[in-house]
Amino acid sequence: MIPESHPRYESLLTRELIVEGIRNGITSMQGLIAQGRGEAFDYLIGEKTSTCALQAERVTAAMLLLAKRPVISVNGNVAALVPGEIIRLSDIVNAPLEVNLFYRTEERINRIIECLRSLGAKKMYTKSDGLIPGLEHERAKVDTDGIFNADVVLVPLEDGDRCKALVEMGKSVIAIDLNPLSRTAQCAGITIVDNITRAIPNISKFAEELKDSEKDELLRIIREFDNKKNLNNSIKEIITYLSNHGNLMPP
Amino acid sequence: MIPESHPRYESLLTRELIVEGIRNGITSMQGLIAQGRGEAFDYLIGEKTSTCALQAERVTAAMLLLAKRPVISVNGNVAALVPGEIIRLSDIVNAPLEVNLFYRTEERINRIIECLRSLGAKKMYTKSDGLIPGLEHERAKVDTDGIFNADVVLVPLEDGDRCKALVEMGKSVIAIDLNPLSRTAQCAGITIVDNITRAIPNISKFAEELKDSEKDELLRIIREFDNKKNLNNSIKEIITYLSNHGNLMPP
Repeated sequence: MIPESHPRYESLLTRELIVEGIRNGITSMQGLIAQGRGEAFDYLIGEKTSTCALQAERVTAAMLLLAKRPVISVNGNVAALVPGEIIRLSDIVNAPLEVNLFYRTEERINRIIECLRSLGAKKMYTKSDGLIPGLEHERAKVDTDGIFNADVVLVPLEDGDRCKALVEMGKSVIAIDLNPLSRTAQCAGITIVDNITRAIPNISKFAEELKDSEKDELLRIIREFDNKKNLNNSIKEIITYLSNHGNLMPP
Repeated sequence: MIPESHPRYESLLTRELIVEGIRNGITSMQGLIAQGRGEAFDYLIGEKTSTCALQAERVTAAMLLLAKRPVISVNGNVAALVPGEIIRLSDIVNAPLEVNLFYRTEERINRIIECLRSLGAKKMYTKSDGLIPGLEHERAKVDTDGIFNADVVLVPLEDGDRCKALVEMGKSVIAIDLNPLSRTAQCAGITIVDNITRAIPNISKFAEELKDSEKDELLRIIREFDNKKNLNNSIKEIITYLSNHGNLMPP
């Protein structure tokens, strides 16, 4: 339906992928809007991984490798866009997956679990017997063995409220969020300002490189990272992008 | 389903409006993603009408009042978000509406026409007997009495390709687009960088103020406007917003 001649052909094809996720009952319609927000911010960083995102991705790999009870949270967009990549990361760093939806329905949760299992996911937390304090009931549900009890949680594309609630539980929260100003980006312990389609494979690559490193070396990588500074650099990259493009249009 | 306590409650409610548009067969799923892109850029201008947007809105009112054969193009998102407001503008400036979809199906075209008629739209162009040169067949379809023959076309939320094709036909194209860097924003004769929910009522307000003005006065308003300069100012506003928010986070 989209002509190949269209200049935004590739971006439109990615949209098709997530629209397909809706047809399969994996993505929510609100998730589509969230995808659009991400597209806009990705556009403003030039649709490539910045140096600061790459640093945050390396630190994330170190954090996941050092964690005692790491969990990777999966929502509808993650399952539609990077199902294979998230399973691969889960295997490499030994962090089980837990499905966690903003617009939660048991049906959609089960579809995503089935989809991930069919693609080879082995370790998953699938109960909903715990509640994150401070959140409205449906949004608070988690697995007591999984996110509830985790020390490090990777939340790609998380809501600001839930990110904050997880931080307040004392967890190390790693967020992937293309908007460096978002509440999620600002309250997470580590913020990766990058598209998940690039971020997840990057974290996996770093995790493989760091897998046999000494604990002290991993700790050093984490200690040297300053999330606030990194976030500010992400904002500066957008400003540079806008300034350069503004100059293309002489007054 | 969304708790009132959620800090982004209003923005989430607007999303519901457009999700409702999908359930009614008015909005496309790709339109939801486009809405998300818009949300992101709106966020970056502080979710309010800037001084430069207000200027472009006033010039738009003057252009529509001066036009001989003005047409207002309506797509699925416009119909879902501002159906009443677009009909009101159509009445004030005497510019008929024409439904024009990126993902065109006759069924959706007819649903939108029915929806607009049920809300009181009188003047509409509903044929599809003309083709805009240079576009793939389905996307080229227009009414020969409407957009094909128009001198001024208001395209809220238009695709870059189609905007360019309309400009190449020699029409004065007025675009409403929250992304000042987009191809649509950059190729239109007048670009309003604002949310359509604010832009359409603003244009109507200016049209009412200017309705009885002399032709010379309207021409003067148009002549004094510099779209490139205005667009550059819109980009600068985003940079200012980002810089201010970047400063909220000391390194």
